[in-house]
Amino acid sequence: MRTQVAIIGAGPSGLLLGQLLHKAGIDNIILERQTGDYVLGRIRAGILEQVTVDLMREAGVAERLDHEGIPHHSIELVFSGKRHPIDISGLTGGKVVTAYGQTELTRDLMDARAAAGLTTVYEAGNVQPLDFDSDKPRVTYEKDGRTHTLECDFIAGCDGFHGVSRASVKDRVTEYEKVYPFGWIGVLSDTPPVSPHAIVYGNSERGFSLCSMRSMSRSRYYVQVPLSDKVEDWSDERFWDELRRRLDPDLASRIVTGPSIEKSIAPLRSFVAEPLRFGRLFLAGDAGHIVPPTGAKGLNLAATDVKYLSGALIEYFKERSSQGIDTYSERCLKRIWKAERFSWWITSLMHRFPDTEGFGQKVQEAELDYLVHSKALSTSLAENYVGLPL
Amino acid sequence: MRTQVAIIGAGPSGLLLGQLLHKAGIDNIILERQTGDYVLGRIRAGILEQVTVDLMREAGVAERLDHEGIPHHSIELVFSGKRHPIDISGLTGGKVVTAYGQTELTRDLMDARAAAGLTTVYEAGNVQPLDFDSDKPRVTYEKDGRTHTLECDFIAGCDGFHGVSRASVKDRVTEYEKVYPFGWIGVLSDTPPVSPHAIVYGNSERGFSLCSMRSMSRSRYYVQVPLSDKVEDWSDERFWDELRRRLDPDLASRIVTGPSIEKSIAPLRSFVAEPLRFGRLFLAGDAGHIVPPTGAKGLNLAATDVKYLSGALIEYFKERSSQGIDTYSERCLKRIWKAERFSWWITSLMHRFPDTEGFGQKVQEAELDYLVHSKALSTSLAENYVGLPL
Repeated sequence: MRTQVAIIGAGPSGLLLGQLLHKAGIDNIILERQTGDYVLGRIRAGILEQVTVDLMREAGVAERLDHEGIPHHSIELVFSGKRHPIDISGLTGGKVVTAYGQTELTRDLMDARAAAGLTTVYEAGNVQPLDFDSDKPRVTYEKDGRTHTLECDFIAGCDGFHGVSRASVKDRVTEYEKVYPFGWIGVLSDTPPVSPHAIVYGNSERGFSLCSMRSMSRSRYYVQVPLSDKVEDWSDERFWDELRRRLDPDLASRIVTGPSIEKSIAPLRSFVAEPLRFGRLFLAGDAGHIVPPTGAKGLNLAATDVKYLSGALIEYFKERSSQGIDTYSERCLKRIWKAERFSWWITSLMHRFPDTEGFGQKVQEAELDYLVHSKALSTSLAENYVGLPL
Repeated sequence: MRTQVAIIGAGPSGLLLGQLLHKAGIDNIILERQTGDYVLGRIRAGILEQVTVDLMREAGVAERLDHEGIPHHSIELVFSGKRHPIDISGLTGGKVVTAYGQTELTRDLMDARAAAGLTTVYEAGNVQPLDFDSDKPRVTYEKDGRTHTLECDFIAGCDGFHGVSRASVKDRVTEYEKVYPFGWIGVLSDTPPVSPHAIVYGNSERGFSLCSMRSMSRSRYYVQVPLSDKVEDWSDERFWDELRRRLDPDLASRIVTGPSIEKSIAPLRSFVAEPLRFGRLFLAGDAGHIVPPTGAKGLNLAATDVKYLSGALIEYFKERSSQGIDTYSERCLKRIWKAERFSWWITSLMHRFPDTEGFGQKVQEAELDYLVHSKALSTSLAENYVGLPL
């Protein structure tokens, strides 16, 4: 079997890359370890920067997003029992972010891929990217009891943090990592969101909380928990009680509760691998970098990687220029590190740190107070939230 | 002996407070443990916010400052071998800071105090603020082999970090502290400053450096050093070599070297005591709080304390209102914590941290790159540098 670009991973990065390449007439095959239903079952981010929306449009898969995505013009910070709106749109000359669940975006991309008759091999076992330092790379995998070989010109590693792509170059990457001393427990529920037009970020004495949404009838809420907590420790009732106690009285009184349809605990991590290109193998999205979800940057960074990578590959095949390929890693990393900084900053600002002494806590309080009263620092937050210029 | 306000400490805080009270017709006596020459010999800050300049004018002691002070409209950040000017004035609607050595400011205040015939008791030993929870406070001290008692209405503790004022309420204050894992070695030399109109802050692989000035013929330079270093480890030649290696080639080539007329190593510390008022005893300046010198906030915070305290005392004596006194601590601390946050931030941004892993270093580099390209974050730096609104 042969294709121009072998894509490892059928998450949003791999699917979006496949669609953009296909639109440009470049043949690609996706190999995915899991089933399609498993991929769709993962609950992830839901806030899209304009660059991500634009890329979905460019890929011709934005019809539902344009209909159902909900523009957010502001966010709210809640601390010391008070709400402080940050006018994201007003501070950035009219820019917005769009609330649209990653699950929905993935579904749109899968549907478009199926409609175009493109090949996705699900349940591909033991995927191995090989010979990517030569000009004849290939990917082997197992399926239905046999080993298959996919020959290709390039391999795109879109297989996430735990995927085989980065693992296959593990002695050639420098890894930068920060693990935070807490996690988030998240609840998805079919209830109207308490704040349908602005994500709410709370920092109370009891810890961080977040009120977000997937649609006007589906909410996503989180609270900061110790890493030692288990999902079983958190009944729905305990979760709703805790969430209310971390918000201001008005918001708390308006939370509509309901049974959780998904509930999970995730650790928070910052991670970057350098470089992102190894001969004819590229890492994109979570395969190369992770941010804590606080800044809603993970999916958007993946989209930017895909934008640069699709552009580079199209340039290569259409114009026989390797310039895009040669600068891929550097261009991505420049944007990645700024988003890593922002995600680390907003995470540091909004959480309670069990290991922070009095001085750190007081500085955090001073920074929050300064932030909501300073147009300059609010603008810095806003311009990062909507996405820094490419 | 009796006075209305007993001031402990003849540094800039105590002297400025004494002058402002005198102008308002309020009697005061300063008790100082050291000699006047010793006080003048201490080398300290040299960058004044407008609020400090205005207060010197209000005290009628700004004639030389207005003549000799050098307005700074910008600062420069040097990193990755390149210089990045930050247009402080342009970003703040025309505000500036003024370079004028603390020694000069102290001398002006001492001269004015002498000219007005006000009492300063130098070499006052074993100073003890007493009975400040009653309405008959007093201060005892030893001089010329005898114990003296100064009766008063109020006591102002302007005696610095190691002074007796805070020590006398040590079981009633909450202390917040952060000690940084490095110090600065500073050299004063009678050479023209390399950058006479903008303080230069450098962050190189070899550590932090700072180029500042006291006048057009007197320079003050610093480099970050391990806390274990001693002044004896640093010959003038080694200092100048190290400074050059931490700057960009152009600046390095233009440094004019000369013999050090003062050379010392100081640790960097963030510290706040809460509250700042105990009955009829008030803490002002370094007695209540310390910032690392990176943001040039120490003397300016002291001036703000003195502004609030002089106003509160004048209000009390003229209008018999205790409102200013009752709100003194809270008003000061609001501004102090914002300056503590800024000083901590700029210190974190510009130094190399021996204990920071790879991620922290990369985030610092991303933040510097973002800062000099973002008008929003540059404006945040600038508005803090010139001093946030009172």
